[in-house]
Amino acid sequence: MTEIEIGRNKRAHRSWAFDDVAVVPSRRTRDPKDVSTTWNIDAYSFDLPVLAAPMDSVVSPDTAIAIGKLGGLGVLDLEGLWTRYEDPSKALGEIAKLAPEAATARMQQLYSEPIKAELIRDRLAQIRSAGVTVAGALSPQRTAEFHEAVVKAGVDLFVIRGTTVSAEHVSQTAESLNLKEFIYELDVPVIVGGAATYTAALHLMRTGAAGVLVGFGGGAASTTRKVLGIHAPMATAVADVAGARRDYMDESGGRYVHVIADGGLGTSGDIVKAIACGADAVMLGSVLARATEAPGQGWHWGQEAFHPELPRGSRVKVGTSGTLEQILLGPSSSAEGTTNLIGALKRAMATTGYSDLKEFQRVDVVVAPYNS
Amino acid sequence: MTEIEIGRNKRAHRSWAFDDVAVVPSRRTRDPKDVSTTWNIDAYSFDLPVLAAPMDSVVSPDTAIAIGKLGGLGVLDLEGLWTRYEDPSKALGEIAKLAPEAATARMQQLYSEPIKAELIRDRLAQIRSAGVTVAGALSPQRTAEFHEAVVKAGVDLFVIRGTTVSAEHVSQTAESLNLKEFIYELDVPVIVGGAATYTAALHLMRTGAAGVLVGFGGGAASTTRKVLGIHAPMATAVADVAGARRDYMDESGGRYVHVIADGGLGTSGDIVKAIACGADAVMLGSVLARATEAPGQGWHWGQEAFHPELPRGSRVKVGTSGTLEQILLGPSSSAEGTTNLIGALKRAMATTGYSDLKEFQRVDVVVAPYNS
Amino acid sequence: MTEIEIGRNKRAHRSWAFDDVAVVPSRRTRDPKDVSTTWNIDAYSFDLPVLAAPMDSVVSPDTAIAIGKLGGLGVLDLEGLWTRYEDPSKALGEIAKLAPEAATARMQQLYSEPIKAELIRDRLAQIRSAGVTVAGALSPQRTAEFHEAVVKAGVDLFVIRGTTVSAEHVSQTAESLNLKEFIYELDVPVIVGGAATYTAALHLMRTGAAGVLVGFGGGAASTTRKVLGIHAPMATAVADVAGARRDYMDESGGRYVHVIADGGLGTSGDIVKAIACGADAVMLGSVLARATEAPGQGWHWGQEAFHPELPRGSRVKVGTSGTLEQILLGPSSSAEGTTNLIGALKRAMATTGYSDLKEFQRVDVVVAPYNS
Amino acid sequence: MTEIEIGRNKRAHRSWAFDDVAVVPSRRTRDPKDVSTTWNIDAYSFDLPVLAAPMDSVVSPDTAIAIGKLGGLGVLDLEGLWTRYEDPSKALGEIAKLAPEAATARMQQLYSEPIKAELIRDRLAQIRSAGVTVAGALSPQRTAEFHEAVVKAGVDLFVIRGTTVSAEHVSQTAESLNLKEFIYELDVPVIVGGAATYTAALHLMRTGAAGVLVGFGGGAASTTRKVLGIHAPMATAVADVAGARRDYMDESGGRYVHVIADGGLGTSGDIVKAIACGADAVMLGSVLARATEAPGQGWHWGQEAFHPELPRGSRVKVGTSGTLEQILLGPSSSAEGTTNLIGALKRAMATTGYSDLKEFQRVDVVVAPYNS
Repeated sequence: MTEIEIGRNKRAHRSWAFDDVAVVPSRRTRDPKDVSTTWNIDAYSFDLPVLAAPMDSVVSPDTAIAIGKLGGLGVLDLEGLWTRYEDPSKALGEIAKLAPEAATARMQQLYSEPIKAELIRDRLAQIRSAGVTVAGALSPQRTAEFHEAVVKAGVDLFVIRGTTVSAEHVSQTAESLNLKEFIYELDVPVIVGGAATYTAALHLMRTGAAGVLVGFGGGAASTTRKVLGIHAPMATAVADVAGARRDYMDESGGRYVHVIADGGLGTSGDIVKAIACGADAVMLGSVLARATEAPGQGWHWGQEAFHPELPRGSRVKVGTSGTLEQILLGPSSSAEGTTNLIGALKRAMATTGYSDLKEFQRVDVVVAPYNS
Repeated sequence: MTEIEIGRNKRAHRSWAFDDVAVVPSRRTRDPKDVSTTWNIDAYSFDLPVLAAPMDSVVSPDTAIAIGKLGGLGVLDLEGLWTRYEDPSKALGEIAKLAPEAATARMQQLYSEPIKAELIRDRLAQIRSAGVTVAGALSPQRTAEFHEAVVKAGVDLFVIRGTTVSAEHVSQTAESLNLKEFIYELDVPVIVGGAATYTAALHLMRTGAAGVLVGFGGGAASTTRKVLGIHAPMATAVADVAGARRDYMDESGGRYVHVIADGGLGTSGDIVKAIACGADAVMLGSVLARATEAPGQGWHWGQEAFHPELPRGSRVKVGTSGTLEQILLGPSSSAEGTTNLIGALKRAMATTGYSDLKEFQRVDVVVAPYNS
Repeated sequence: MTEIEIGRNKRAHRSWAFDDVAVVPSRRTRDPKDVSTTWNIDAYSFDLPVLAAPMDSVVSPDTAIAIGKLGGLGVLDLEGLWTRYEDPSKALGEIAKLAPEAATARMQQLYSEPIKAELIRDRLAQIRSAGVTVAGALSPQRTAEFHEAVVKAGVDLFVIRGTTVSAEHVSQTAESLNLKEFIYELDVPVIVGGAATYTAALHLMRTGAAGVLVGFGGGAASTTRKVLGIHAPMATAVADVAGARRDYMDESGGRYVHVIADGGLGTSGDIVKAIACGADAVMLGSVLARATEAPGQGWHWGQEAFHPELPRGSRVKVGTSGTLEQILLGPSSSAEGTTNLIGALKRAMATTGYSDLKEFQRVDVVVAPYNS
Repeated sequence: MTEIEIGRNKRAHRSWAFDDVAVVPSRRTRDPKDVSTTWNIDAYSFDLPVLAAPMDSVVSPDTAIAIGKLGGLGVLDLEGLWTRYEDPSKALGEIAKLAPEAATARMQQLYSEPIKAELIRDRLAQIRSAGVTVAGALSPQRTAEFHEAVVKAGVDLFVIRGTTVSAEHVSQTAESLNLKEFIYELDVPVIVGGAATYTAALHLMRTGAAGVLVGFGGGAASTTRKVLGIHAPMATAVADVAGARRDYMDESGGRYVHVIADGGLGTSGDIVKAIACGADAVMLGSVLARATEAPGQGWHWGQEAFHPELPRGSRVKVGTSGTLEQILLGPSSSAEGTTNLIGALKRAMATTGYSDLKEFQRVDVVVAPYNS
């Protein structure tokens, strides 16, 4: 890896975004009908390598079920409105109608309602009863408090998701979650992240996680960069974490930890590139918030948008682009890359001659900035 | 070729677009009057290294004849409106007037009319009767079904054109066209593509093709990139395929396969750069769709724009910029690079001291992004 | 450091702006509450590594006191309106209301009023009486004339600030300030700059300065570049001067000269990057001119904006974004990176696992241009 | 010089524009009053390293005299309106009022009036009578026909200027100007160009020219690039030709050929960069066309704008920015870099510590694209 000298006292590597790269065809082509997008993690198998992000604008119990039936995995946010309110539909409807200047303050109020363990139980039970794989997410800060409620309620996959989650969180004032002990004692496979670098991901893999979320959350990348100066362009982040997967597989004698790109996946082209850079699956937010069934009703937000002291990102109007089925499986009515995501992925795989996801991670990629 | 490390698990090459490069003058200049743009392929000779793309908005039997008389080659789409309708003028007129929201659906209907072998015969006969070189195009999917009709009707050059055409198409559900056998058995020289990489082109050359189309079709490059994540910037694609031509000439003991840039050629400057990167000729679409004689009547579209499941690109309003003669041979009334294409090519060759196309492939090129 | 050949007769290095780089997380995270942003220079200690720039739109005696009480250091311009007028409020009010076409001429008049030594004394006394650290600035041209008044009035830190200040200023018509003698004889620690390169900064450090301002002033960078062709992108400038600090510490047997980034710091993200590139502290202008208490009343200007022969930059409407406290310490009401600057710095440090500023200078940085 | 592989069959060098580079300060500064911008070529000495371009919108006999008295050199186009019409003021007034759609055709008519040898004589006599250095320009095509008239009329410096002028122009239909013989026989020093590469310039230097114009004319660079695919970014072009000057000085045993940047110099910053890259002087067009005295009356055009078959560039409304004296010597009333060009050059030289132009060619330059 070529080092760049920023100045006499600082060196850096070049980091690449999805917009900087593209996939190129090779000598073989295939029939899209012969292409498989099956993804297996632990005991679970999915037709689509797609996780719906644990955000109130994306996943409700109903959409978790719908996404499961379409072949993906909906992850419910267990700290969101669904575990704070018996009936969150009123809060969701209100959020969709808030005036911009009032949104931050009112949403801080709405999210100050306490989380209830029995609602965690009920929501997960509802998903389980539909016969789909059950997944719920907590932040590292809340995991100690609520993980027992979650496990008791029964989840197939447990997701711990934060802006940046490290295997080694240091705090002098609060006791930190010891991820390694926690995962070891838990009976359920854990997916954890975000991690954006090789080192961070390797340490997360050593905690025993089944999968690592790749990305740096906390609002839109451009906002985070302006506020925190932090940016982890996704093509490099995914390829680095895929390198950690390979090295960890070697050091662990064969344990394969799944790499799940999480963030910056706005089009089907980005999904193609994520897998081309080494991802096993993708976690999608805004692109699914555009579904007619989405609980956000045309709006999309993360919890960082309403951080009381340092908001990053905001409630964003995303509109609707089709049903969940149209968005994931087509047919597409536009050429924007926001519907028929899996159809596009299959066509990209077919055009470049690959028939399954694991092989497609080896496809040729070029650096070709978007304005070229 | 310098490899770039995207991340620990992925390497890539840098790929360059026409906008990234420019031609530079050298120590000699010439009189534009002394410059020849003659192009010979197989037994056919053309004053202009220009093929008109087999698209309904560009080539009708009439414009094929007109382009032939001006010194180029018009390639008729044998799966388009001209072989589906006895009189396609009504359909063309309707397309030019469709409201945007109705366009996709109505055009899908119009193109669902079956292709008729006798119309293939009649259209090609009309072009032949005018005394110009006759060329028609099929997609790989339709070649098996209609190539006999085409050959019987009599073509001088047979074009097989698809988004990506590989020498090795794998399908478990449909029998694929074996290009090598097909070309071997055919009596007519075949031009085939698109191919965007050295390897893909080298394999196409080994099938016995007389020419290879360089490019990755399927709609505007930016749309394809958003939907499929695939992008093959043209300066690199042409130079890579020209490398395959050189290597194949060596391995075949001297067979010269023509390299035809197809896609991304929006201005005369792009044509200059295509040849500077190694192309023997260029296939033009939108720039000819702007002719007053063009069947598209100011609109331009490809078949991918109306793909039933995964549309890429769309019907685009291009307007008109002059007659076919003004566009190809001038005089130019604007400084936009969209008229007098060959005059501009000749002046670029003269200014840099070259007198024929084959020599001009050696002209000095610099990397100088457009915003510089 | 890789040299780039511009052409046969000229070589250059690549230089990087804050927008070209970003900080990346590593394997450890911390609690923001455990992070310290303490900065010590000479005998003075500050909770925040922040100097307010000596500009009439930013620092008045009142805001110097307010910034001092918040934990930073306000530097009063001793050649500005406060030392020219007994009561500058009328002049400030008038500037905020000037029509654009009249601004240059009228401001040239307002700044032609002579500087009064007794006002230097009174203003500094007012700041001192509030119990905060006292700092005042002169340009190199005025230092000989007024430094005695300043020292007699009593300053804790003496700032000599110009567009470019060199240790070796050559003039045939005026006697130049001999910085080395001047600083040696002065009893007060001196901060001097701007310097934008390793060599320039190293020579300034050898004069005995306690701190060096890094940057090339004289108006907005884009304007300076258009007018003078000069540009010193800040990430490289800070990292180069930090290299000079290291080398000078070695040659001087351990004297640590502080590196203070001055210019181009428009967001909290830029402050994070400045320290990541090696700065000990930052000098802020426009971002503090947006305070409700700022004397500029929503306008911001430097003296170069009204240079009689060669104006660079201009009076700029910046508006207001919050109180000084909100800007420096939050809470933030927006996600633009212009409020809660220190909260953002602490979060960036915590997220990347660092607990003090000196350590954070070692954080990993990537090259990732902003549009990526 | 690092070669870039565009693709397997094409290599290229990176080429840099003025916008890609910037000058950086070093350890020394100077007083602008001590800086000299004197330029000597052959027996002639100029206070300013500035030639006004031979274009009808820039140089009339009156402005040639005015520029000469300010210390520069005005070069009269001897194929323009002034040698076609006894009184061109009517034509100039008409051009300034033409409707855009009528401009090309009417200007082609106006420029079809024959050139008159006696007007060449009278115009040059007028300039000479004012006591300033006399310079006139012809294109290579017209040099054979009119050079005797020019020499007889008496010029101090003879300029041969075309889009691209090579030492080796090849034509089968017209006899070409043999530059080497022509210059050898002429008694007057010749400045010739444009040349944009090392090789082209070296060959021009070997013809005996006193100066070489660096650039690729023929309309705005962006238009030329779209139409012809040709682009020679100026920072590289100037540095390459300066390399030819050095190598030619070596091979000729000490003959110093002046390098004059011609094109792309829109601001004082560009002039600074041209000299920093190795130019001895600059030829200015549009920036002087903005003078209140300019014959273009707020419009600017070159002859390529009205090429009958392949127009590049066009008549452009530039407006007025000040008197010739304000533009060249200031004072400046704006911060756009279009007035007080020499004041800005002197300040840039002073700020970086240089006192004459020849030394300033060694100033440090960085690569720092404009958007950084």
